Amino acid sequence: MELTRISFTPKQSTSPCDILIGEGIFPEIRSSLESMIETPSSITIITDSNLKKYAKGLRKDLSKYAKTNIVSFRAGERQKSFQTAVELLSKFAALGVDRKGIVFCLGGGVVGDLGGFVSSIYKRGITYFHVPTSLLAQVDSCIGGKTGIDMDFGKNQVGTFFQPRGVFIDPNFIDSLPKVELVNGIAEMVKSSIIASKRLFERLKRSDFDSIDELKRFIADCCKIKSKIVSADEKEDNLRSILNYGHTVGHALEASSNYSLSHGRSVILGMQAEGWIAKELGIFAKEDFVQQEEMLKKFERNGDSIRPRKKELLKYALMDKKSSSGIIRMSLPEKIGKMHRTKSGNYLVPVSEKLFLGSISRL
Amino acid sequence: MELTRISFTPKQSTSPCDILIGEGIFPEIRSSLESMIETPSSITIITDSNLKKYAKGLRKDLSKYAKTNIVSFRAGERQKSFQTAVELLSKFAALGVDRKGIVFCLGGGVVGDLGGFVSSIYKRGITYFHVPTSLLAQVDSCIGGKTGIDMDFGKNQVGTFFQPRGVFIDPNFIDSLPKVELVNGIAEMVKSSIIASKRLFERLKRSDFDSIDELKRFIADCCKIKSKIVSADEKEDNLRSILNYGHTVGHALEASSNYSLSHGRSVILGMQAEGWIAKELGIFAKEDFVQQEEMLKKFERNGDSIRPRKKELLKYALMDKKSSSGIIRMSLPEKIGKMHRTKSGNYLVPVSEKLFLGSISRL
Repeated sequence: MELTRISFTPKQSTSPCDILIGEGIFPEIRSSLESMIETPSSITIITDSNLKKYAKGLRKDLSKYAKTNIVSFRAGERQKSFQTAVELLSKFAALGVDRKGIVFCLGGGVVGDLGGFVSSIYKRGITYFHVPTSLLAQVDSCIGGKTGIDMDFGKNQVGTFFQPRGVFIDPNFIDSLPKVELVNGIAEMVKSSIIASKRLFERLKRSDFDSIDELKRFIADCCKIKSKIVSADEKEDNLRSILNYGHTVGHALEASSNYSLSHGRSVILGMQAEGWIAKELGIFAKEDFVQQEEMLKKFERNGDSIRPRKKELLKYALMDKKSSSGIIRMSLPEKIGKMHRTKSGNYLVPVSEKLFLGSISRL
Repeated sequence: MELTRISFTPKQSTSPCDILIGEGIFPEIRSSLESMIETPSSITIITDSNLKKYAKGLRKDLSKYAKTNIVSFRAGERQKSFQTAVELLSKFAALGVDRKGIVFCLGGGVVGDLGGFVSSIYKRGITYFHVPTSLLAQVDSCIGGKTGIDMDFGKNQVGTFFQPRGVFIDPNFIDSLPKVELVNGIAEMVKSSIIASKRLFERLKRSDFDSIDELKRFIADCCKIKSKIVSADEKEDNLRSILNYGHTVGHALEASSNYSLSHGRSVILGMQAEGWIAKELGIFAKEDFVQQEEMLKKFERNGDSIRPRKKELLKYALMDKKSSSGIIRMSLPEKIGKMHRTKSGNYLVPVSEKLFLGSISRL
């Protein structure tokens, strides 16, 4: 079977992360594991109620290798909570998982973020792997070791940086996704291309996202882009903030809609707003801004109209992790495939409230 | 003022940990901070209800440097819980602590372990410092970045490896400690000497622990020993396990007494048991074992008699983090100041159940 392999080691880590991409990858996982780690004392698959049948398939493939259990929780964003984390930790203990046990997070972003968090704090951290099932998780969230849960006081406000030892991606999972999930992934792919690859941008422009072979190449390209960025700056001291392009406005829109607006649509609108700001600041070349506009319009057609509440969005933007001392900061493109860096080498650019509000008016 | 400074950088870290030791250290903290980190956006002092007056003193010294708040919780081991962690995280959010905020953990082991854990997961980790107030925390738990909380299913079963940026130690805090607290610290000092320094062992043997100057030197010696070990093996892959000398039996005794037996007394008994095992295995030189016995007897005089329940102790020893596949493993001394390494380079030695039970019979 044809597997695409991408390996990287973040500067501060001692162990690498191996990303393997291929259709029907489950039967290949066991032999891959043997080359990556010592035989584990147990395997625990974390998944949600919708994906249990896939988890059972994976368990079948792994159970001859080590004692394999499934722990699952009810599907849904709301489960990304402290409550569920404590439940999973207690289940680990009840199953007798020790420091040589390993974890598989099989699912989308919720399973990955929560499962990664639980793996990072159980007995001060045990080895874990991602098996992402949504396009968004495959091209973005499964790489980089950001784990997290949502708190009353905000999303992802509690979490860790904890790298998975490996990621197993099967593009066939995408077939089972509803369209809104697909757009979530495509939005992040478009973002990846704008921040780092003109070539990928051109390919995405021409694609109708129907061929699994093509999707597989897109996923691999996005994994390469993200792993390169994370290698250089795991803890988001500077460079990693470029992954946040479109996300200052995007997150504000999402939060202000009380998360009824999808992440994909929010990021598309976010890039429209932030791209315009970059152009107004003379940072983003005009012809490249126009190209971005054309690309993003492709995914706008079926979007619901939004009625942004400016004051609220401003409040959220000021609370963004990149903002500090009451000043909004964004990572902005210079041209398609290259992000702007200030003279002092910083990837974050201060943005006035006026310009921020101007960009919102255009949405 | 005369400060002792010890700096080390764990192999896997990019930033160092600076340990500063001196009497009346609080007024020195601010200028030390300026040389260590960029100006923080805020300072949050975590402490418990017994230590609030010291926290207020520290706040006074720091408040001109940055906005400084105190968050406290009820003193006691029971507070080292998920519940208290969530409360502290919520307080951080309510105070508007951002990624450039820093934390001081002012207190003993509970404050340090819990405060370190909260610092490690708030916004995926913010910079923190220890101000240990118990001798045990000063010579042991404040160094090495182990954070943790207790769960229904066990002590320290949830936590992280997360290094403090610095540690500020004032030996004067020791004066305010009850005797049992002092013995907790002395037990760890004796352990440090047995695993790494014959010279420290001799000094401890001659000491009556009355002089603050002498205590300060002991604390510095222990900090040096521990930081050297942690530098080489932060995640306890091998060498770091020598810090666990006396703790396999010690933890079992503590747990089996439902924590009515103090940590210090448990570790002293633990070293008596494990030292004997090492001697029986022909690992620990007999004359050194006798020296250890004499030393430990010094601290035995006021100890309550114990009635160890063998079967229960065996169960706990098999659950110990160093045990695996149903085999008890311990780190054992070769002579005073040097731990044993197997031919394959491993610091852990398998111990038969018979030998384990034999060591318990002698207590």
